[in-house]
This record gives sequence, C-alpha cells and structure tokens, in this order.
Amino acid sequence: IRQQNIEENMSMAMEEAPESFGQVAMLYINCRVNGHPLKAFVDSGAQMTIMNQVCAERCNIIRLVDRRWAGVAKGVGTQRILGRVHLAQIQIEGDFLQCSFSILEEQPMDMLLGLDMLRRHQCSIDLKRNVLVIGTTGTQTSFLPEGELPPCAKLVSGTGP
Amino acid sequence: IRQQNIEENMSMAMEEAPESFGQVAMLYINCRVNGHPLKAFVDSGAQMTIMNQVCAERCNIIRLVDRRWAGVAKGVGTQRILGRVHLAQIQIEGDFLQCSFSILEEQPMDMLLGLDMLRRHQCSIDLKRNVLVIGTTGTQTSFLPEGELPPCAKLVSGTGP
Repeated sequence: IRQQNIEENMSMAMEEAPESFGQVAMLYINCRVNGHPLKAFVDSGAQMTIMNQVCAERCNIIRLVDRRWAGVAKGVGTQRILGRVHLAQIQIEGDFLQCSFSILEEQPMDMLLGLDMLRRHQCSIDLKRNVLVIGTTGTQTSFLPEGELPPCAKLVSGTGP
Repeated sequence: IRQQNIEENMSMAMEEAPESFGQVAMLYINCRVNGHPLKAFVDSGAQMTIMNQVCAERCNIIRLVDRRWAGVAKGVGTQRILGRVHLAQIQIEGDFLQCSFSILEEQPMDMLLGLDMLRRHQCSIDLKRNVLVIGTTGTQTSFLPEGELPPCAKLVSGTGP
C-alpha cells in the first residue's frame, strides 16, 4: 500500500508538474567589476558576496584585499577566506553599485552576489519576469539563459532513480 | 602604500555602508506543510527544495518518501538524500501550493525553499518591500524579522578582524 501511494503521488506530480523532474537553470547575471566582464551567481541563501581569488586577480582588485578579515566560510562546504575588499564597484547594465567582497581561495564560480548586497541595493529576484531588479535605481537585468551559464553552473547535480 | 589603500578603502566603506560590516538576517518565511507550521529558508541558490527527515516525520509526509530517488546532495556540504516526496502541499498565507521535496537525513534547517519551487510558482524575492511574492496568485508573505528566525539561522558566521 505504501509503495502504491508513492506511485500515485509520483504520477500526479508528473502530470501536474513534469518540469519538477528536470534540472533547474540556476540564476546568473552579467556584470562587470573594474571593467572586467563576469557572470555572477545570484544567491539569496548566501550571507556574503564572494569572489574567487583568480577572478579578483583578473579584475585587479586583489591589491585591495584586507587580510585582517581572513577566516573560514561555512555553508558552501568549508573554504578559506583570504580577506575582504571593503569597497569596489560592480556594474550591472548601466548602474554602478558599491559592493564589498569576501575573497575565497577556491570556489568554482567567479562571483556570488549574496544577500548582503541584494539587501543593500534593495534588489528583487523576479522569477515571473526572469529579471533581477535593482531597487535603488529601478534598473533590470535578465537572468542568463541556460546556454550562457558558466561551466561551473553545471556542477550541481540532481538525483534520479 | 598598499596598506594605506586598504585603510582608505575601509573607512570609505564604513562611512558609506556601515551596515555591510554587520550580520545580515537571512530570509525565512512562515508556512505550513500538511497543517504543521514551520519556518522555511528561502534560497535562490539551491537547486532543490529540501526538508530534513525529522521535519518530514513531524509533518507526516515521511510515508510518501520515494526511496528510489535517494542520493547525495552537494553544495551544502555533502549530505545523504533519503528520497523524494513528489507531491505535497505547502501553505503560504492563504495559498496552497504544490511542492516536491527532497528529504535530507541531516540538515540544520527544517525546510529550504529552493529555486525549483520558486520558479514553478513564479515567485519574487522582493528586498525593497521585504516580502516573498507568489507570482501565480499575487499573494505576499513577509520575511521574518531577526527575532523570529529559528536557532539554526544563527549558525552562519561572518568574519572580522
């Protein structure tokens, strides 16, 4: 009976929400830091905005890293934080926004836009229109379609029978 | 000179965005699953909606777990997935929404509302108004103030000198 319940539950789900059995394209936007283009992962579940070391070197902000803020980041596994860049500019469409970054030693994605910056700029992650809205300016930028996601976006794996 | 640059950068940041040196309250909402109240973490960076085993028992949906979907979840450390509940209802304010859950063995938070469900119901995480909007119905629910967050929400730690 238990297995029968589960089967019924699964066929209903397949009828009503077949897409829930597929992969979900994660949320990335195009932006620039110090003029260097990159794709940022938009993550309301992350407390801090982070950038990996290689990307920080590429964007020429590595010299601004304050190593007194070194430490350990939890929740994304455990990773070493090299330090913090207190103030840098991130360009989203035509907007230049003040941003702070924690610089992580190893981190598959170049940049992660965390809740600290999303809150500071009163952003809205709008999945009805598939855009990120910067609340302080009204500027919108589309989330990238699956074909434009960086390779690391495909690392996240689902499960299946 | 390098250290001086960093100091200047930090004092500018402290003047312009003193809040960026504090902790950010994470995004939780009140909801009900099978009539049982719980606080769900809203995480655009998570591919799947998940619930921990203890919470699934409390909500009486553990008998619906399809163990053919067992596996390993990455990105939140590595955790064992017991299986999947293909179809359950989650109540947010007056709305009853169809939802699928992966059930994790150990997981500090009761429930995490991931991008799969946020997309399915065309949600909007609106930090200007501090609400989650269900796009398919227009219903809104406020993100919980810091005092109402579950204890596990305080686990996430920042860094500082």
